[in-house]
Amino acid sequence: MIDHSELKLRRDKIRALMAQQNVDAALIACNVDLLYTVGRVVSGYLYLPVDASAHIFLKRPDMPDGERVHRLRKPEQLPEMLNALGFAMPRRLMLESDELSHTDYLRLAACFPKAQIVNGTPLIRQARSVKTRYEIELFRRSGILHARAYNRIPSVYRAGMTDRDLSIEIERIMRQEGCLGLFRTFGQSMEIFMGSVLTGDNAATPSPYDFALGGEGLHPSLPVGANGTPLRDGQTVMVDIGGNFYGYMSDMSRTYTIGKLSPEAYDAHQVCLAIEEDMMRHAAPGYACEALYENALLIAEQQGYADRFMGTTRHAGFVGHGIGLQINELPVLAPRTKQTLEEGMVFAFEPKIIVPGVGPVGIENSWVVTADGVEQLTPGSGGLVALG
Amino acid sequence: MIDHSELKLRRDKIRALMAQQNVDAALIACNVDLLYTVGRVVSGYLYLPVDASAHIFLKRPDMPDGERVHRLRKPEQLPEMLNALGFAMPRRLMLESDELSHTDYLRLAACFPKAQIVNGTPLIRQARSVKTRYEIELFRRSGILHARAYNRIPSVYRAGMTDRDLSIEIERIMRQEGCLGLFRTFGQSMEIFMGSVLTGDNAATPSPYDFALGGEGLHPSLPVGANGTPLRDGQTVMVDIGGNFYGYMSDMSRTYTIGKLSPEAYDAHQVCLAIEEDMMRHAAPGYACEALYENALLIAEQQGYADRFMGTTRHAGFVGHGIGLQINELPVLAPRTKQTLEEGMVFAFEPKIIVPGVGPVGIENSWVVTADGVEQLTPGSGGLVALG
Repeated sequence: MIDHSELKLRRDKIRALMAQQNVDAALIACNVDLLYTVGRVVSGYLYLPVDASAHIFLKRPDMPDGERVHRLRKPEQLPEMLNALGFAMPRRLMLESDELSHTDYLRLAACFPKAQIVNGTPLIRQARSVKTRYEIELFRRSGILHARAYNRIPSVYRAGMTDRDLSIEIERIMRQEGCLGLFRTFGQSMEIFMGSVLTGDNAATPSPYDFALGGEGLHPSLPVGANGTPLRDGQTVMVDIGGNFYGYMSDMSRTYTIGKLSPEAYDAHQVCLAIEEDMMRHAAPGYACEALYENALLIAEQQGYADRFMGTTRHAGFVGHGIGLQINELPVLAPRTKQTLEEGMVFAFEPKIIVPGVGPVGIENSWVVTADGVEQLTPGSGGLVALG
Repeated sequence: MIDHSELKLRRDKIRALMAQQNVDAALIACNVDLLYTVGRVVSGYLYLPVDASAHIFLKRPDMPDGERVHRLRKPEQLPEMLNALGFAMPRRLMLESDELSHTDYLRLAACFPKAQIVNGTPLIRQARSVKTRYEIELFRRSGILHARAYNRIPSVYRAGMTDRDLSIEIERIMRQEGCLGLFRTFGQSMEIFMGSVLTGDNAATPSPYDFALGGEGLHPSLPVGANGTPLRDGQTVMVDIGGNFYGYMSDMSRTYTIGKLSPEAYDAHQVCLAIEEDMMRHAAPGYACEALYENALLIAEQQGYADRFMGTTRHAGFVGHGIGLQINELPVLAPRTKQTLEEGMVFAFEPKIIVPGVGPVGIENSWVVTADGVEQLTPGSGGLVALG
């Protein structure tokens, strides 16, 4: 279990932002925010006052009862229980408005009829965007396991495989290395199984979801990723499987080759590596997130790949994104993002180019912002790896 | 792709319920309901008038533009676009209040400031609970693939495996047979990777989630299912991996044995099979869902297993549940469920008993309600299967 000082650190990060907005208390009810503030998923609530100790209210025996762990049947008991604990009713209460269903929001808000309700989701996401030392260490360990799994990919390739066949073997390797499998996302604009394996022109197929690349998918109920395309000579395979080893979504893509590619494909891959190197030179506390996107796009344009950068039919509007307990955290590395990097932020950077007739090339690594730059969390070079 | 007559049938089922509540139109925005009414996940909306043709509004090129397929950038364009199509603004509009985030709900509701908003989620879930012939056929096919995968489980068992090791091999088999992997749930009370593999006393560990059985899980971030327990002689392994082959979550559990079990374990398993047989004798259109639960509990009590039926530390409050595009659909087979079975409903029935020191025993199959009974969708007998 996570020790209490780590949980206090996280709760205090949220409290500092609450204080700025004159919020008295937060009622945290969503799984990912409970995981962040309680250290595990529980069935219940964390009541987090801005200036007093937090209390946990559980509907089930997920944790032993204790001084600050209580049992309840339904949220309507909260006011009376809080009162018995000596709390005054909050005047301004924070709820997770961007994640709670409308129905759940109304039910929780009705428990505090005199409170003004503030949307806590952006604030908690902001707190979560700057990781603690402990979280960064979990990301380092995740990155090592993620890379170890990817290093085994050539050993499971067989001639005649489809993208789906290869994906199944990679999923197994990831699980064997400790991946929990669950791919947590924020909002309903992303939905995927463990990640994507894209080859050939399938990589250019647009998807309804907000991933960097799309893919037709295997069924209209999940239109993203591999679609059963045979892996062919002269084509690439991009592997982008999520790395949830300790609750944290490490993000890593590598490009694999089958036979010899067209000269353009090798060149396009080098451009992606150059974009990554450029990011490494610039990224540091205070650097603008949108500048990382603009720099990347400029290099792609200068090298003649503007129309194929981050997609062809449709272009992803970002070149990277924060990662944490969910795959799409803050900050977003995209135009008009008015955020700058801060020490402790963890992000995925994924310059990718689609080469028609060949497939996707490029690279993705996870990075943590250090005092004066960035540290790579998913080890290994970004060179093309031959499968066959 | 699903043909238009099937989509019309589904939309008309929703329309019939809308008409009962004097709802003029529904704006459908959540992935699963879009999948149901459009036939695929799209990034956008379905506008469904109660008495006119539906129109699709897409933020991305997920489908070709057409007479009733339009492009939009943001939902605020809807009123003007609907007006241009000749629609009067709805007086009573249905939104998916139980699934939309509070923030998304407010944004969509604000597009129709004069409309009274009605919660559409219960109504759409009701429509979805009675499956069409086409959906039932997909369930039949899913059940066959699901059973085919389970039949291969003994071939991947090796002495010395943990529950996690075995789970990884079963996940691979499921994927090879065509499982899409994604496990769709309704609400945040359920979260799981592909399903659970439970052995020994881990099966009795309560979980914060609403599954029939719990399990500690491999990490506090996902406290359910396998926890790394070695598979030992004299113990059982219950496999309950979700079967999403065509978007529909077929549900099936089988109990596997290692060596010889205690006499009590064999007896408890027979009791579960007897509970299933009892359900088969009673379940038919018009039969009360709560009676199916009461019958099951009564048999468990009569046989002396009341304290171990559906859990020990904590007992699941149901013995079965509707299945469809999500694992937890209507109806719920639980006390105080005022619903009766209808022809075309598809449900999972999962009598399970935990035997201390041995593990879980029991059975789960998926069933469709026919004109005069039920048809088993996940083929095969429920006998114990020896692994080693």
